[in-house]
Amino acid sequence: MADEKRAHRIARLTAEFCSNPGKLFTLSSFSEMFGAARSTLSEDISVIKEVFDGRDFGRIETLPGAAGGARLVPKVNPRAVQQMLAELCKELASPSRVLPGQFIYMSDIVFSPSWCHKLGAIFAAVFFDAAPGCVMTVETKGIPLALTTAWLLGLPLVVSRREGRASEGSSVNINYMSGSSRTIQTMSLPRRALQPGTRVLVIDDFLKGGGTVRGMMELCAEFGAQIVGAGVLVETEEPKSKLVQDYVSLLKFSGIDEQAQTSRIAVSDKLLARMQRMV
Amino acid sequence: MADEKRAHRIARLTAEFCSNPGKLFTLSSFSEMFGAARSTLSEDISVIKEVFDGRDFGRIETLPGAAGGARLVPKVNPRAVQQMLAELCKELASPSRVLPGQFIYMSDIVFSPSWCHKLGAIFAAVFFDAAPGCVMTVETKGIPLALTTAWLLGLPLVVSRREGRASEGSSVNINYMSGSSRTIQTMSLPRRALQPGTRVLVIDDFLKGGGTVRGMMELCAEFGAQIVGAGVLVETEEPKSKLVQDYVSLLKFSGIDEQAQTSRIAVSDKLLARMQRMV
Repeated sequence: MADEKRAHRIARLTAEFCSNPGKLFTLSSFSEMFGAARSTLSEDISVIKEVFDGRDFGRIETLPGAAGGARLVPKVNPRAVQQMLAELCKELASPSRVLPGQFIYMSDIVFSPSWCHKLGAIFAAVFFDAAPGCVMTVETKGIPLALTTAWLLGLPLVVSRREGRASEGSSVNINYMSGSSRTIQTMSLPRRALQPGTRVLVIDDFLKGGGTVRGMMELCAEFGAQIVGAGVLVETEEPKSKLVQDYVSLLKFSGIDEQAQTSRIAVSDKLLARMQRMV
Repeated sequence: MADEKRAHRIARLTAEFCSNPGKLFTLSSFSEMFGAARSTLSEDISVIKEVFDGRDFGRIETLPGAAGGARLVPKVNPRAVQQMLAELCKELASPSRVLPGQFIYMSDIVFSPSWCHKLGAIFAAVFFDAAPGCVMTVETKGIPLALTTAWLLGLPLVVSRREGRASEGSSVNINYMSGSSRTIQTMSLPRRALQPGTRVLVIDDFLKGGGTVRGMMELCAEFGAQIVGAGVLVETEEPKSKLVQDYVSLLKFSGIDEQAQTSRIAVSDKLLARMQRMV
């Protein structure tokens, strides 16, 4: 009977953690939820912690003291990440993805909920220690990746638009130079979307010249907010000189092999270096 | 000792279900994962099933037979949904959200990962029986809600854009009439984004005249795909006559009370009727 109750508690605790990433549950709140002693729950949590430590669901962080408790925080296994990204590179290198103009078709990947959860988990783990207070992206293709990253970190998401909308109220607009096409573009964010002093994590799908990420940095500066990290799914090898330096890319695209019609795309050395520091 | 192993299995099984909504796990795959008998795992799963039945994490569906197994499918509790939406209405009715031109500021909600997970769970539960094969939306503000709905159903997401892009290859473009502003707009979807015969669930943040949802229907028709459901977060009371009839809205917006400067917004009777049929 005690065994049955324990099994039920562990199933429910695990589901609560997984359904609320980043949320701190106090032992007292669990104690009320289950009508069980804090010491009992503490033991249950240590079982879940052990299971998660051996897998890639994230990590259960326990905080001691009266205000303490437990929460699910992002964690990835560097080896599993490399394997998963190698698989993604293989998928992206397929000749069927080559488009006119040296583009690769990636929309199915950047809009895929399951890929975005796997890739967002990497960004969440890489930038967790930077303690961001929100995630920011610019419409459109970066949104799913930014959303899953924010979800796994338990943070809000802020999306800047190409132009202001009446349905978003007064906004701050900046002009910026696209790093690759050298054209002037506009980026707009509602005034109420970002508080001064917020620590911002920038997430986007693609970085060529770096103009868009640089634009987001300038936009944040207008709000008195502070960029604490930037992550992109794919960066291009060319141009070598980017408008921003301090970012983490997951993949690097070095163009299309005209003969074989496949893309040269590999796991980014920026990520590998960053993961080495995490271990 | 057996008790310890069981606790570990239940934690891991729960985390596997929660991390892979919609995915069918066969008993054999679990059996390999844990080195435990299928009958043992079957008992573990029934514990998790019981716990989920009493909560709002979804529902564990077990399929019998050799090819059978278990998966997490969407489920919501109608009473909890009504409470949660009433809370959202209260939040949205705040005078601070009133914008010039009879708009309410909603960007923080439609981009919020935690709100989108709660709201996406409603759409996923409402449309699960329609057996969609993908979720579709149009950029920008519907994307997070469509993504979480697709995630909880274990489906891919397809996003149509306001115009075609070189980075998305050849596309199908349609012109459609906005139901409210009576202007001609364009919607574009890459040719490879949607296969003929796909059952499509349309999700969007806002429905006024219904032109956008109608546009998505026409776009799907161009691909030989079939709309099996449409869900929007907010519909407006005016205009009463919409270009589409068969959709489910979660909330209904009836304008702004000029005196009190609060919005009149309530849980949609369309949702209430639909949930009654679900019970």
